[in-house]
Amino acid sequence: MSDYETILTDVSEGIFTLILNRPDKMNAFTGRMMHEMCAAFDEADADDSVRALIVTGSGERAFCAGADLSGGAKTFDYAEGKSWNEKGSPKRDDGSMDWSHPSVRDGGGMLSLRIFNSKKPVIAAVNGAAVGVGATMTLPMDFRLASDTARFGFVFSKRGIVPEAASSWFLPRVVGIGQALEWCYSGKVFGAEEAHEKGLVRSLHPPGDLIDAARSLAHELTDETAPVSVAMARQMLWRGLGAPHPMVAHQLESRAVWSRGASADAKEGIESFLEKRPGEYPDRVSTDMPHFAPWMDDPDYT
Amino acid sequence: MSDYETILTDVSEGIFTLILNRPDKMNAFTGRMMHEMCAAFDEADADDSVRALIVTGSGERAFCAGADLSGGAKTFDYAEGKSWNEKGSPKRDDGSMDWSHPSVRDGGGMLSLRIFNSKKPVIAAVNGAAVGVGATMTLPMDFRLASDTARFGFVFSKRGIVPEAASSWFLPRVVGIGQALEWCYSGKVFGAEEAHEKGLVRSLHPPGDLIDAARSLAHELTDETAPVSVAMARQMLWRGLGAPHPMVAHQLESRAVWSRGASADAKEGIESFLEKRPGEYPDRVSTDMPHFAPWMDDPDYT
Amino acid sequence: MSDYETILTDVSEGIFTLILNRPDKMNAFTGRMMHEMCAAFDEADADDSVRALIVTGSGERAFCAGADLSGGAKTFDYAEGKSWNEKGSPKRDDGSMDWSHPSVRDGGGMLSLRIFNSKKPVIAAVNGAAVGVGATMTLPMDFRLASDTARFGFVFSKRGIVPEAASSWFLPRVVGIGQALEWCYSGKVFGAEEAHEKGLVRSLHPPGDLIDAARSLAHELTDETAPVSVAMARQMLWRGLGAPHPMVAHQLESRAVWSRGASADAKEGIESFLEKRPGEYPDRVSTDMPHFAPWMDDPDYT
Repeated sequence: MSDYETILTDVSEGIFTLILNRPDKMNAFTGRMMHEMCAAFDEADADDSVRALIVTGSGERAFCAGADLSGGAKTFDYAEGKSWNEKGSPKRDDGSMDWSHPSVRDGGGMLSLRIFNSKKPVIAAVNGAAVGVGATMTLPMDFRLASDTARFGFVFSKRGIVPEAASSWFLPRVVGIGQALEWCYSGKVFGAEEAHEKGLVRSLHPPGDLIDAARSLAHELTDETAPVSVAMARQMLWRGLGAPHPMVAHQLESRAVWSRGASADAKEGIESFLEKRPGEYPDRVSTDMPHFAPWMDDPDYT
Repeated sequence: MSDYETILTDVSEGIFTLILNRPDKMNAFTGRMMHEMCAAFDEADADDSVRALIVTGSGERAFCAGADLSGGAKTFDYAEGKSWNEKGSPKRDDGSMDWSHPSVRDGGGMLSLRIFNSKKPVIAAVNGAAVGVGATMTLPMDFRLASDTARFGFVFSKRGIVPEAASSWFLPRVVGIGQALEWCYSGKVFGAEEAHEKGLVRSLHPPGDLIDAARSLAHELTDETAPVSVAMARQMLWRGLGAPHPMVAHQLESRAVWSRGASADAKEGIESFLEKRPGEYPDRVSTDMPHFAPWMDDPDYT
Repeated sequence: MSDYETILTDVSEGIFTLILNRPDKMNAFTGRMMHEMCAAFDEADADDSVRALIVTGSGERAFCAGADLSGGAKTFDYAEGKSWNEKGSPKRDDGSMDWSHPSVRDGGGMLSLRIFNSKKPVIAAVNGAAVGVGATMTLPMDFRLASDTARFGFVFSKRGIVPEAASSWFLPRVVGIGQALEWCYSGKVFGAEEAHEKGLVRSLHPPGDLIDAARSLAHELTDETAPVSVAMARQMLWRGLGAPHPMVAHQLESRAVWSRGASADAKEGIESFLEKRPGEYPDRVSTDMPHFAPWMDDPDYT
């Protein structure tokens, strides 16, 4: 897609790199960036040559410094001055808000849910400041690698707002409830070392090595593995993390293992194992994902 | 409230200190203590000058040594000899128990659910033995700081009873299922170092430094942060930890960020940030928490 | 049961040892082994002299090397060539699959759910390679002890299939979502040290000390503890880990603490504590588990 304004994209060696690209604004997040990032994930999912994604920021200072505050004090007042989409305004005639109106959506959350549904592994390469939505958008990504100069901040309590981008679901699961609360209460900005020590970040790297490390990990995850198996594992494990009982996981897994067990990939998987050679898997994510319920029974926004 | 018998309370520097105060009984837990603690949390939530709570024990030996066993072998036989409240007795005419009767409530659990709903951060300062309900009541608190002389025990299997105070929900989430099972099976009493190493305790302190450390943490969490943002973050993250899918979190967050985004706090948050000064947030927990569903759609006891 | 073909069993000192016993096949998993393991767990639950289980593998090379692949490329094509049980075939007349047919069940998941429902603590003593279902079957066990020569692999992506045995529920909870995804994407086989460092394994032992360590842990968990309390704690904590809100745990705990609080075990627990002697608990798992709903309200497979 050559018409992206806020991001750059690149595909090479099976890796789709998504670069947040507003370096003079510390890659600050806008509504347009949200839509472009979602479109890029659509691209990556549709392209069978893509096996993994890396998300990083342009320049040396920032991954993403959070919401673009150039609109000033009204930045987070979404009901004001917005050009309404086809769903219309959530303001009633008397000026009160209809909180259950379908236009009341957090943009960061829409992005996080899109990343949650990615069919390819997603690696955040945090090259600098990741603050506000710049931090929370990395949580539905599978892994966070960071340069040792990176900084993080869940600063909502210092902006008079609240955690977003579905981070109230992701953050306590990734780092534990106590650490999640501590960072969200204090709103402090903290360094890469603390992020690594507390489990937010998988590994630290010198700035110049960060992208190579992310690419190396992407290869480790996708070379010699079956693309459909990886896509299904991603969706199964993230959903399993939320499921209230292992029976829910068993229902999905039963259909998934029967479906994949009858596939050409499974035949190749077994034969290549018995022949002690790398597998070459014929099935493709774009065409060979099974479509039985409850495979995609994610709840709608209502 | 000057009529507390089992606890002491104090408010200073925005910190509500709740002291379990039966030092000659190792601060053993009683029904009265449960009701007084719940009332103290109500007080703290209603008082906008309170920004955080610290819960600790009186004396040097114990935080809370568990249920008061002075009633002897019948202590946990709740249906015997109890003066029934307006909900009546769960015993049927034939002497059998109606397990679904609304009087069948675990008092420790009622306390834990009250702490779960606190609108202010809650810090346990575990100054000595925390055993049985003395250990489990700390789990819905956000952080456990401990003196290096503290001891912990989930001793239910050695009393012929079972985990309570909603600890079957909290403990596996705080320390992981394996460690939770190991402590609850063995019923052993263990030291502060093990509690810290296994993630039950956030930090260890010499006994004389414990309260100062807790107060210092309280200030770090609440100075320069917006009270309503902190209250909402607390409720959002704890609920997000249980939610089965990030969409559930997104639904609540969408309304919360739109609501807070239009607030005076958000304007001040952005302006203070742009002006590089600490924010002074006008909104108050007692009056400015949003009230849209599903904000408080916690399940009833049925 | 003397008619087991794929496993050996032994009961001594209150410990039921279940040995996967196809050493010439690296204890590879078969349908028969699944049914025999489930029957052994039934035996252990029904035998009040049994206080804990240890699951290990025969020989020095393997705990369980995964599914037996001697059937070749069709191994995972469950709909082919299978002799159908009374539920019949999930293939429609036109040859298409009815994915919601009750015959579509993952055998590994049926085993995991049986282990999930065990009334006695379960210790995996991983004496060698634990690969595929050999790794995932250990996840619903409470603890994994491993010889320092053990190896693990969630190799599904290299066989063209997907995570099974309800591992999409268990694995992210045991080791965190990031580590779970990394192992399931890459399909790599890794050593005991990595398994220990990342939280999959509780403790490492020289091969010759592994069973003694597992037996020592079993004694620590069950000596001087009440069998019914341990059984109920096991079921409460595992279910609490999945419950969406602490109220769900509180509902079950309330009935459980009232029920157990009126028991002979509770009287003995308090008296033995006050008399500073080990308790001798009269109640038995086979007869004294309470049966009120929602005690066993696990969801059916539908």
